[in-house]
Amino acid sequence: MSTQPTRIVVIGGSAAGPKAAAKARRMDEFAEIILFQREQELSMASCGFPYYVGGTFDDRNMLICTPAGIVRDPNFYGKAKGIEALVQTEALRIDREAKTVFLKHLPTGNERTLHYDRLILATGARPVCPAAPGFDLAGVQTLHSMGDADALRAVRDAKEVDKAVVVGGGLIGFEVCEALRLAGIDTTVIEKTKQILPFLDPDLGKLVENHIRAHGPDIIVGNGVAEFLGDNGKLVGVKLDNGTELPCQLAVVAVGVRPNIDLAQLAGLEIGDQGGIRVNDRMQTSDPDIYAAGDCVECTSLVTGRYVRAPYGDLANLQGRVAGQNVVKEGSAHFPGITQTGICKIFDYTVGFTGLSAQRAKAEGFTEIETATISGLDIPVFMSGKLLISKLVAERESGRILGFQCVGPGDVSKRVATMAMAIRGKLTVADMVNADLPYAPPYSLALDHTIVSAQVMENKLQGRMQGLTVTEVKERVDHGADCFVLDTRSPQEFEAMRLGIGETLIPLGALRDRLDELPQDKDREIILYCKISLRGYEAASILQQHGWRNVKVMEGGIMAWPYAREK
Amino acid sequence: MSTQPTRIVVIGGSAAGPKAAAKARRMDEFAEIILFQREQELSMASCGFPYYVGGTFDDRNMLICTPAGIVRDPNFYGKAKGIEALVQTEALRIDREAKTVFLKHLPTGNERTLHYDRLILATGARPVCPAAPGFDLAGVQTLHSMGDADALRAVRDAKEVDKAVVVGGGLIGFEVCEALRLAGIDTTVIEKTKQILPFLDPDLGKLVENHIRAHGPDIIVGNGVAEFLGDNGKLVGVKLDNGTELPCQLAVVAVGVRPNIDLAQLAGLEIGDQGGIRVNDRMQTSDPDIYAAGDCVECTSLVTGRYVRAPYGDLANLQGRVAGQNVVKEGSAHFPGITQTGICKIFDYTVGFTGLSAQRAKAEGFTEIETATISGLDIPVFMSGKLLISKLVAERESGRILGFQCVGPGDVSKRVATMAMAIRGKLTVADMVNADLPYAPPYSLALDHTIVSAQVMENKLQGRMQGLTVTEVKERVDHGADCFVLDTRSPQEFEAMRLGIGETLIPLGALRDRLDELPQDKDREIILYCKISLRGYEAASILQQHGWRNVKVMEGGIMAWPYAREK
Repeated sequence: MSTQPTRIVVIGGSAAGPKAAAKARRMDEFAEIILFQREQELSMASCGFPYYVGGTFDDRNMLICTPAGIVRDPNFYGKAKGIEALVQTEALRIDREAKTVFLKHLPTGNERTLHYDRLILATGARPVCPAAPGFDLAGVQTLHSMGDADALRAVRDAKEVDKAVVVGGGLIGFEVCEALRLAGIDTTVIEKTKQILPFLDPDLGKLVENHIRAHGPDIIVGNGVAEFLGDNGKLVGVKLDNGTELPCQLAVVAVGVRPNIDLAQLAGLEIGDQGGIRVNDRMQTSDPDIYAAGDCVECTSLVTGRYVRAPYGDLANLQGRVAGQNVVKEGSAHFPGITQTGICKIFDYTVGFTGLSAQRAKAEGFTEIETATISGLDIPVFMSGKLLISKLVAERESGRILGFQCVGPGDVSKRVATMAMAIRGKLTVADMVNADLPYAPPYSLALDHTIVSAQVMENKLQGRMQGLTVTEVKERVDHGADCFVLDTRSPQEFEAMRLGIGETLIPLGALRDRLDELPQDKDREIILYCKISLRGYEAASILQQHGWRNVKVMEGGIMAWPYAREK
Repeated sequence: MSTQPTRIVVIGGSAAGPKAAAKARRMDEFAEIILFQREQELSMASCGFPYYVGGTFDDRNMLICTPAGIVRDPNFYGKAKGIEALVQTEALRIDREAKTVFLKHLPTGNERTLHYDRLILATGARPVCPAAPGFDLAGVQTLHSMGDADALRAVRDAKEVDKAVVVGGGLIGFEVCEALRLAGIDTTVIEKTKQILPFLDPDLGKLVENHIRAHGPDIIVGNGVAEFLGDNGKLVGVKLDNGTELPCQLAVVAVGVRPNIDLAQLAGLEIGDQGGIRVNDRMQTSDPDIYAAGDCVECTSLVTGRYVRAPYGDLANLQGRVAGQNVVKEGSAHFPGITQTGICKIFDYTVGFTGLSAQRAKAEGFTEIETATISGLDIPVFMSGKLLISKLVAERESGRILGFQCVGPGDVSKRVATMAMAIRGKLTVADMVNADLPYAPPYSLALDHTIVSAQVMENKLQGRMQGLTVTEVKERVDHGADCFVLDTRSPQEFEAMRLGIGETLIPLGALRDRLDELPQDKDREIILYCKISLRGYEAASILQQHGWRNVKVMEGGIMAWPYAREK
């Protein structure tokens, strides 16, 4: 151990950086490891910010503590990890020839040059700011830094703001929306594109939209911010592209993030076409002595094989660990890529996804895909089961599972994890229809939601069922299409809730005796549904085998219908 | 459709039978489908019995209703499914030559002969009864049939029993134990073998045992029933093999089930070495016109490739669906096998498993395996995370995941589902260390428990960590082994809770400065731990790199320690 220790320098102290530094330390007790961070705080649980803002917990320290309750400050890093952590320190430039980084200590302005043997870039991402004027008004902010979290928490505690606008209808936008609503603030979310939560297909997105509105917040889609309106330097409202003005004292901008690649670009490292630092599967940049991890990089989609950006905290930690291992033992760790999995709590709903939505799959060039939408309970009725609505996407020919979206008050998280593993294992629908999952009434139906989802998909792939999405049905109804719509529920259910789109009620149990009430033209389109469309599917089987040739099931049934109903 | 309809006869109306019949109907609207069932009820949610008994819900009909609230009686089967369902009807004999079944209607004693084109056996399983005398006393029963559930529910409602014994420490035994405890009954579980919950390794089993005792019930292991003691035909106590007498008015026997193969055996169908009906991957028996599904069959373990019995409700449904499809369209559906996944709620704990435990893997001939035990929260502290303790089992050479057990108050179900899919996808530890799972603070840590579990395993497989189970540490301590035990937590934590097995306290953060307090003999065994043993692992890395050659981490830390503590 008498050789000169390796010096590992890590730029960035939020998620990937500290993870990489800690892993490098465990791999090499004698390396010199220096980490620096522009902010004051280190290794913040950024994903917890909305819950601190919303009052799920009150102790700010919990965002920067170890599970044992020790604040992760430079002293902790020094003592417990043997890592020199420099906070409020910015990297200005990298000299790859000389293998040095130029640093500036922000409070003092002192600059210094630091040699590295291996460098890890974990420079993260920056919030995208809309081009609208007035962004610098007091009352306009993001939720990206610990300072942002402090400011928004202060808003909650001060109880002075009564109206807020959230700009951006993605994951963070709605986490912020919920936090503000829990603080008693009247909140409107505005989204420039036509749809909130772009990783969902529109029919599922619409269900989430309904759920959010039911909790108070308003949502405006297809309308961006034209201007932040101010008075004496303070925000008083937001003006939209269509001229609408929304009075508010707070605007939180959450329109996404962009990789922070300034240093990398300046140093001439390869930048990918998705705008992130390009790395190989060892998290190594185009300079073999420089690694990168976290929100600043692009990684590979295991579904499409293409580069994607995926600024998620879990991936930052995974990538940081790989980089930290490889800077000590080159090539010993690999990061194969991601399935693009995400989840978000929005009031009583959970919204989760893994892989590709149908619209995303098409955009990626998958032309031959099939989808299966189902509604169902997570656990049995007698255990107070809650609803799940999901959509599975698969390749038609191979049956390979491409994606899964799931929303609802039920246990979405388990189902998304299950399907994320199916995608990781490159499983097909045929593999999934007989999955052996943990079953007991407190945790699942006898056939879990994910399995039923695959079974419905199998029925479609094998031609036993033709389906329509609720949106396709709505379009037909709106256009006065010549279809016969059949509700197969019981009269009691029909009395309690119904679509009112010109449907006929024939309960499944009576159908075989009442076939003469159906269209005599066997080619006429018949659309069937029930509450969740299981009985609809059974009815479709009956009709098909009795010679009707154009029988379709409205997938997910009434539970998946996000549009207005008669009752 | 003018040909003679196929006649499909299904024997058994609990889970696999109705599923098979319903699937066959959807596949062929014109087949004649006749199902019969010895009991009065059809398609009961048997796995829900303990929750009805325990008072989670009070409406008995919920056990035999569709989600839409319709009782699944013969009328429902006739109308909604087009299936003739005969209840209280027993199959006496199958004549494979003539393709007939001999039936007896139990209330009337009427017998008839029924021809079949395809036959599906879904005869289920029977509870194993201990050989002890007194089994026929009033007050001794099983929880297998709807009648059993009614009887036990009546015990709850009558409030006359104050002491009960549950015979059998498996899944059902503890579900019953919880139900009786919730009914205010003082309950003791007795288990003949040395360990409860035999699918767990003993160290995890012991944690569950502690948890159960903390909720009131007593557990006696290594002691079976010698005799059910009666007075005037009524149970008054249970006498154990060691002579102990436990006074009680109720004994519930839950020592497992045995495939009900009488009919199959009588008909000369092949029976497997596990005692179930042998079927191929289409659920076809040795007679091509006879299929079988559910608790009466053996199926293939995807982990070992061997035949196993797995009497679980979810598998019965899956297999029933495959059989029901194949009787109409031969060879169109496959049941590839199982990973052996199960779960159970026991008070505030969930106990789950998939694949093989370490002891089971060894029994199956996997000699080169590695295990990794970890403790950790399911979600962050600031979201009120709850504990999970788990053990991963993998093949040492290939890294293939063989099994996973998880117990604790946290969300076990999601983690077991995740690992069940990993095993199904034949994933290795290397695949799992970088899994892309749904992360947000309400649902997971940034690195999910399953991922950390794989990372610890990877560290072990790559030689970066040597581990000991808590049991191995306990044995060393009990035998006075010459090892140096080091607790790496903080003094505050040490003050609040400690093992008291002769350990030295050196907090991780102070370790680098206090290396001189460690044994100077660098070959002496040093055992490190902390609360969950993450800091223990970090400390181990430090010591190893400073030349100590025999450094071991007590896996899972204090949280996994099931034995008595000093405080």
